[in-house]
Amino acid sequence: MTISMYNASVPLFNQMLTSLSNILKKAEAHATEKKIDPQALLQARLFPDMFPLNHQVQIAADFAKGVTARLAGTEVPSYEDKEQSFAELQARIAKTLAFIGTFKAEQFKDSEQREIILRPGTPKEQKLQGQVYLLHYGMPQFFFHVTTAYAILRHNGVEIGKRDYMGNY
Amino acid sequence: MTISMYNASVPLFNQMLTSLSNILKKAEAHATEKKIDPQALLQARLFPDMFPLNHQVQIAADFAKGVTARLAGTEVPSYEDKEQSFAELQARIAKTLAFIGTFKAEQFKDSEQREIILRPGTPKEQKLQGQVYLLHYGMPQFFFHVTTAYAILRHNGVEIGKRDYMGNY
Repeated sequence: MTISMYNASVPLFNQMLTSLSNILKKAEAHATEKKIDPQALLQARLFPDMFPLNHQVQIAADFAKGVTARLAGTEVPSYEDKEQSFAELQARIAKTLAFIGTFKAEQFKDSEQREIILRPGTPKEQKLQGQVYLLHYGMPQFFFHVTTAYAILRHNGVEIGKRDYMGNY
Repeated sequence: MTISMYNASVPLFNQMLTSLSNILKKAEAHATEKKIDPQALLQARLFPDMFPLNHQVQIAADFAKGVTARLAGTEVPSYEDKEQSFAELQARIAKTLAFIGTFKAEQFKDSEQREIILRPGTPKEQKLQGQVYLLHYGMPQFFFHVTTAYAILRHNGVEIGKRDYMGNY
């Protein structure tokens, strides 16, 4: 009646980041076809104080990278948020997929019990047990940004559907 | 290095449906305060061929109910989609939380291996192993609808934030 911490994280990030990449390909093709400035999509937001599409993608990728590395007890690499084009976002996703692809299930041994410290040394420092960190913090955050990226594109008329979001499972 | 199928499902549904309930309370209070017709929010969509808020909430609740029941090997109760007010949506969420709250971890024994049949007897029938069903199908679907409900309300100016979405973890 159990599943491994690895199976509950890396393959799921892989599925959703791959689908996010495919969604962004469709968005870029849509912009090209309709002669829309790509920045009109990349900088689109659902509300003025929400993040635009490009940052939603960056954050989704960062949660995949951060959750994976923290559960495996390795250092979280820092990727600068400088992507300003669809091609650069694709490279960010590809780099993230390659990074999480280097991890092996064995590295997640006992990670459900490991103490994860968020924002260490800051006033907002928070300690979570690995299982809570993955299921109750990492997953909701990751899916939030993937879904919001999808929602921004749907709201802007890009013809994508739930099947694109779900990807291969 | 393992987590139980129960822990990877019911407590997470509980967290997110509770936060969805709180978000809807804030949305209702916002409508009252600004003298907005509640239907303007309940029927709001991000794009004409997407579902409105009330149906996003119904579907989110249905995934919580359906995934839980299928993994436990019990019948999935059918709830009619008739909610037309914030109070009715709150009742739908409460009924769903009460339903999933009746399950015990033991009922999920071996569920990661159980064959789950989606849309049985239809041309779209699909068989998934329990672990795949939960992680790669149920979770992405559930989070999609919770996040889209949040996105619709944010897009309509309801003052909620990431903390409301995350709930208690």
